[in-house]
Amino acid sequence: MSFALSRNVAAFLLIGTLVAPGSVLPARAETSLQAPVVAEKADKDDVSSFHLENGLEVVVIPDHRAPVVTHMLWYHVGSADEEPGKSGIAHFFEHLMFKATKTYPAGEFSRKVAEIGGQENAFTSYDYTAFYQQVAPQALEMVMTYEADRMENLILNEDVVKTERDVVLEERRSRTDSDPAALLAEEVNATLYQNHPYRMPVIGWLHEMQQLNLKDALAFYQKYYTPNNATLVVSGDVDLATVKALTEKTYGKVPRRAEPGNRQRPQEPEQNTKRTVSMADPRVSQPSFQKMWLVPSYTSAKPGEAEALDLLSEILGGSSRSRIYQALVVQDGSAANAGAYYQGGSLDAGSFGIYGSPRGSATLTDVEAGIDAQIARIIKDGVTADELEKARNRFLKSMIFARDSQSSMARIYGSTLSTGQTIKDIQEWPDRIRAVKVQDIQDVAKRYLVDSRSVTSYLMPEDGKPDQKIEGETPASGETQQPEPPAQGVIQ
Amino acid sequence: MSFALSRNVAAFLLIGTLVAPGSVLPARAETSLQAPVVAEKADKDDVSSFHLENGLEVVVIPDHRAPVVTHMLWYHVGSADEEPGKSGIAHFFEHLMFKATKTYPAGEFSRKVAEIGGQENAFTSYDYTAFYQQVAPQALEMVMTYEADRMENLILNEDVVKTERDVVLEERRSRTDSDPAALLAEEVNATLYQNHPYRMPVIGWLHEMQQLNLKDALAFYQKYYTPNNATLVVSGDVDLATVKALTEKTYGKVPRRAEPGNRQRPQEPEQNTKRTVSMADPRVSQPSFQKMWLVPSYTSAKPGEAEALDLLSEILGGSSRSRIYQALVVQDGSAANAGAYYQGGSLDAGSFGIYGSPRGSATLTDVEAGIDAQIARIIKDGVTADELEKARNRFLKSMIFARDSQSSMARIYGSTLSTGQTIKDIQEWPDRIRAVKVQDIQDVAKRYLVDSRSVTSYLMPEDGKPDQKIEGETPASGETQQPEPPAQGVIQ
Repeated sequence: MSFALSRNVAAFLLIGTLVAPGSVLPARAETSLQAPVVAEKADKDDVSSFHLENGLEVVVIPDHRAPVVTHMLWYHVGSADEEPGKSGIAHFFEHLMFKATKTYPAGEFSRKVAEIGGQENAFTSYDYTAFYQQVAPQALEMVMTYEADRMENLILNEDVVKTERDVVLEERRSRTDSDPAALLAEEVNATLYQNHPYRMPVIGWLHEMQQLNLKDALAFYQKYYTPNNATLVVSGDVDLATVKALTEKTYGKVPRRAEPGNRQRPQEPEQNTKRTVSMADPRVSQPSFQKMWLVPSYTSAKPGEAEALDLLSEILGGSSRSRIYQALVVQDGSAANAGAYYQGGSLDAGSFGIYGSPRGSATLTDVEAGIDAQIARIIKDGVTADELEKARNRFLKSMIFARDSQSSMARIYGSTLSTGQTIKDIQEWPDRIRAVKVQDIQDVAKRYLVDSRSVTSYLMPEDGKPDQKIEGETPASGETQQPEPPAQGVIQ
Repeated sequence: MSFALSRNVAAFLLIGTLVAPGSVLPARAETSLQAPVVAEKADKDDVSSFHLENGLEVVVIPDHRAPVVTHMLWYHVGSADEEPGKSGIAHFFEHLMFKATKTYPAGEFSRKVAEIGGQENAFTSYDYTAFYQQVAPQALEMVMTYEADRMENLILNEDVVKTERDVVLEERRSRTDSDPAALLAEEVNATLYQNHPYRMPVIGWLHEMQQLNLKDALAFYQKYYTPNNATLVVSGDVDLATVKALTEKTYGKVPRRAEPGNRQRPQEPEQNTKRTVSMADPRVSQPSFQKMWLVPSYTSAKPGEAEALDLLSEILGGSSRSRIYQALVVQDGSAANAGAYYQGGSLDAGSFGIYGSPRGSATLTDVEAGIDAQIARIIKDGVTADELEKARNRFLKSMIFARDSQSSMARIYGSTLSTGQTIKDIQEWPDRIRAVKVQDIQDVAKRYLVDSRSVTSYLMPEDGKPDQKIEGETPASGETQQPEPPAQGVIQ
């Protein structure tokens, strides 16, 4: 427990903002990740990549401003790759990777990193599982030695499985089962995705987590924790030649154990209904709603569509300058908070969402209708060239901020390469954002934001209804919040 | 096409009323099947069963009133056993079984049955796939010979796969894709079941059916079409000794090819939300709604619960004498049709449903509120002893009618034995129905019919809303219908 928690706290500080399909994250942080960017063409040559003979892909992103390196190993396996009935195994396995190996006792790797003032953590999402450390450059070989070792030499037995299963079960209890918003989010995903495994929670369904066993763990390790199923990203104060030499010396010794094959998951059927998912719980004080649509991701979209969806979310509800925020929070004051987001950083289908909370005498229904009206306006009249230009600039600027951190850069490259895109896709992304036209915004809004194919969720106080005024608990007039959808993060 | 259609028409006449979890069937026909019955203790000894050495289970139900036998072979595999991404393979395979074998050309078996005036068909549901013929007793050996032959000698190649895939795709287009109620029912199931494969349509999702291939078919045949994964039921003008001799001569020669193992499907997590699924379509003239709950099936329930759910559905809405029908259709005239049903005949979780259509100036919301009030009354005040007694008598009487048909009996035994129950369960069922007490009815209503864990569907004309009055299309005052939920059957 304490081990898991301390890892989680560190991860939240360092990672905190990863994108997962179906999860809800602050719109700003989210776009900085799903939509990877290199700000200037001049930087393109800085990123190199190569493959070791065992199939491990290595990406090097030099940044010599500070004597720090970020080392992130991304396995191309996440909860959406789990077998039916085995939900939670990907995240469970992330935990098991911190156990003893044939070479080193449990905890030694973490202790070594801590001793030199480094940071480390790991996280699991729908499409990937990643392990990272941030250390001084001279410690890179040490980190690679331990990380390569646990790719091959992990000791799995009944004892470690039982112990760590209790840890993840407790994690589920404290993060999900005790939180109405988290429980609602699970059922929203299970409703939004009718066939795709994104429907299942990353942490797993409780009754399936309880059954995870040694046999499952061994099979998972064997199939997925093989060098040809991973991408190593090293960013920071390091050069290509050093990384080449060090990876050959460490990871290069790990044999290719399996061929995981194509990542073919069951895809969504055509959706033809409007759905709602409601929860009323005494622990809820501030009512809120969300409406979600299945839309293409950067990987699955036709050229230009994902970029247009990103800018549509920016114009509609990505910041306090957005249409939704200006109309509902600033002008008519019906919402304490409202916005829109696009989650396009997944291997399969992505999602587009709007959200809001009422203020004063307004109800959830009022806020929903107010946002719907903003969508209807864009579908009918489109956006202006000036509005698009400003949104594009805000958007690109936020990407430049993301680029300023070596760990953000490592996350951008790692998550993007783990979800079916290429380094070229990442590098050309700003140009593709620049190419989006006014008409493209209206087109994707019209094509995808169709009310009769949406899933709306309502989170309410006990006995609440969407059209019911909530007394006394909403922020007083004047108290508004920055647009920020309820958090439901990647799992560490 | 014409082949499939002619089979379908015959099946509809003969079978027409099978129970499938998540499907909606006339309440009366449905109870006659999910809740198998032998009316009198004196009959118990009439049913015998034995196993062949290859594992085939054989059940014999003599009935000498007419010179006819019903021969039904039940494979313990249905759509809920399909692998992810392979939805529709079970039903597709049912079609393939009518192709040529190494021994006989395609169509010969069907032709022979037709020549002697017999009937034949096949059907697929969530938990089983069955093939049957009804013929004169002297043709039983012939039928067994052909049926045993195709268990072992089916010829599968690219040609038959491609041809028959086009047939099932056309079946999906004509039965599902062109019918708003069928499309809605699919998405209701995909919402009601968040994790269990009952969420997937028996016929399959279109995009997955299109990908079904020879490799899938070969693997499916190899794994599931083995004698130790089947139950043969022979009912009618035949005796045990004859069936023993004939089965040993025919089926006895088929080798055991695989061990399909336990039928462990992913189970449902705890559900914590109220959900709605809505469709508005210009082809809809009569609006209707349904509300469904996940409840235990006869196989998964604690002792007595399934029987109490059956009688609750009878009291609440199983006939024109029921509370719902009397209150909404007869007394206040707000509903053209309304009722309740329990689907308890599945291997895993079952469902309980209520449904209704408005009449005159009433809206869907009015009818739903009227039914909700009837449920609330039972939860608060229970039912009377007299009411329970009358419902029990109606219920048992309807079972006796079902028993009067040898094909119904074969279906009852076949479906029940294919979904985890035993012959003893079937034979003791009337006594268990007789043991249900007044308090049991209130208990299951309170435990399971919880609005905050329900899934409600609304089918409406174009631009319709649940609280909107539909003009001109509803039956005039006085025109009412017998309680009968919208049909969504087992697939032939």
